[in-house]
Amino acid sequence: MVKIILDCFGGDHSPEANVEGGLLTLSRFPDLHLILTGDEARIRACMEGRSYDAARLEIVHAPQVIGCEERPTDAIRLKRDSSMMKGLMMLRDRDDIAGLVSTGSTGALVTGALVRIGRLKGVIRPAFCPLLPTMTGGIVGICDSGANVEVDAAMLRQFAIMASLYLKNVYGVQEPRTALLNVGKEAEKGDAIRQEAYRLLQETEGLHFVGNMESRDLLGGGYDVVVCDGFSGNVLVKTTEGTALELLKKLKKDIYSRFVYKMGALLMKRMFAEEKEFMNYQNYGGSVLLGTSKVVVKGHGSSKAPAVAKCIEQAYKMETGGLGPRIEAALARYEHYED
Amino acid sequence: MVKIILDCFGGDHSPEANVEGGLLTLSRFPDLHLILTGDEARIRACMEGRSYDAARLEIVHAPQVIGCEERPTDAIRLKRDSSMMKGLMMLRDRDDIAGLVSTGSTGALVTGALVRIGRLKGVIRPAFCPLLPTMTGGIVGICDSGANVEVDAAMLRQFAIMASLYLKNVYGVQEPRTALLNVGKEAEKGDAIRQEAYRLLQETEGLHFVGNMESRDLLGGGYDVVVCDGFSGNVLVKTTEGTALELLKKLKKDIYSRFVYKMGALLMKRMFAEEKEFMNYQNYGGSVLLGTSKVVVKGHGSSKAPAVAKCIEQAYKMETGGLGPRIEAALARYEHYED
Repeated sequence: MVKIILDCFGGDHSPEANVEGGLLTLSRFPDLHLILTGDEARIRACMEGRSYDAARLEIVHAPQVIGCEERPTDAIRLKRDSSMMKGLMMLRDRDDIAGLVSTGSTGALVTGALVRIGRLKGVIRPAFCPLLPTMTGGIVGICDSGANVEVDAAMLRQFAIMASLYLKNVYGVQEPRTALLNVGKEAEKGDAIRQEAYRLLQETEGLHFVGNMESRDLLGGGYDVVVCDGFSGNVLVKTTEGTALELLKKLKKDIYSRFVYKMGALLMKRMFAEEKEFMNYQNYGGSVLLGTSKVVVKGHGSSKAPAVAKCIEQAYKMETGGLGPRIEAALARYEHYED
Repeated sequence: MVKIILDCFGGDHSPEANVEGGLLTLSRFPDLHLILTGDEARIRACMEGRSYDAARLEIVHAPQVIGCEERPTDAIRLKRDSSMMKGLMMLRDRDDIAGLVSTGSTGALVTGALVRIGRLKGVIRPAFCPLLPTMTGGIVGICDSGANVEVDAAMLRQFAIMASLYLKNVYGVQEPRTALLNVGKEAEKGDAIRQEAYRLLQETEGLHFVGNMESRDLLGGGYDVVVCDGFSGNVLVKTTEGTALELLKKLKKDIYSRFVYKMGALLMKRMFAEEKEFMNYQNYGGSVLLGTSKVVVKGHGSSKAPAVAKCIEQAYKMETGGLGPRIEAALARYEHYED
């Protein structure tokens, strides 16, 4: 049985979307056991009239909710009875629980995970690894996308190793093509950290390092993993999402500006719906936190039920794919880079 | 008379596009004088059969060309007879020349400009400031977008001051809304440099600082100037261009996948052409280098004649708008940040 905690509060559509996503996943994976945290009465209200395997579902009452504007350190200290912190504490204390999924505050989740459950052996710092769809129908993982605004070369190498194992063991990508985000393709581009990281990545056995990548090539389909500091990774992911969203919005507005365009769009209705689905990041799951001692998946704050279900599925596959032990084994080979 | 040097080599479509763009601008601005650098015979061949005011056009023979793959420091040292270096040397030596436009190697241009013509008084480091179109029909300047991969807070403040003056005096944007690129909106987001820059920007008189900006909001129309280090600025600009380009490519491919979509697209032909034009960065001019003692504009390597013309127009307006003296005057108020 794979036991996963689902933090039911903190997202824009919580607890409804979270509970619905939870029940959806429960029906799909017969060996999945879910522990829902949050206000019990409100969670029960969301479950009313639905059928599910009650033997594989627990609710743990946690009346507090962490807001997105709260300082992570305050949240951890003052909101021990929140759905997220209670979840993280249970994750730490109970050996039978594999992971936690949350759509709540990113900052509180990262800080809370570091303080409460700690890192896998050998990991300097955990890092976020969200996925984006490529134009060739694949996916690309970006690591780190925001957990560490400052990094060094040894950390970048660890991000590469962890993300590469993630793509391989959870998504079945054999030999993930791994690149370093940089301002140009040449080995000597970027600052001293990037130049050292390039050398480290080149000499890392078991890693399929393909060199530097320029951000304009992200969606082209030539890469499976992109390694970067959390600041520029955050810019990379949010710019891609933002540009796609703004362009689709502009297209829609322009279509409504003339009758003949509306007629044309009518013929292309299905195509436009498909484009919209294609660029909907909710279809590609959450941003997994790589390197924590147990599985942690952060769903987008605006996640609806299918997106929450995707996040739980990711957590489930990270656990059944043995990602944690694989990361520890891989890093043990480079133990002189441990802190 | 405003004298500007046009480096006719180094771009993908040079010298043809450069010469054509030059003649185009010459006919538009009666007090513009152009000095074309490069292989004289090839430049003359491009001009054959065209009419122009010969009194306002010089050609200076420079047989060498700097390739994009050459190391900037080598290029400066070894290619003194290149169209770019000869141009920069003339810019340094002749008081009557205001600026230089090039579509050649970015690295060689930045390094060459720093070594040959130097900085305006008070400027720590010059920075690139390209423009992107916003969804509300405006433009947004991103500074720095690649000249400085490492920065400090004082540099970021200077980028804000310079870019803000650029938007105001060249594009007529009154009170440019200036934001700091960060991983979140709150003042305490980002690393120590970002946090200090936030404080400096807040206390800078004459600057309309509106706080941190997340990259997903770049195109929304809420900002006129975005300040960032050259690494994340490069990621910001290239990700935007790359995402837009890939999406338009995908749309085109999908349209051709079904007959009914092709019919629909036929009705929307004009709209799609407009979208393509809207996202064509060539329409928004080059990336100007702010902070050098004379005007330097870098056109995209793939620039065609209209894009080259846009770059010359930018250089012309930077000079006639008195941007250099304005930057020096503004920085003089914060002289404790000079190096």
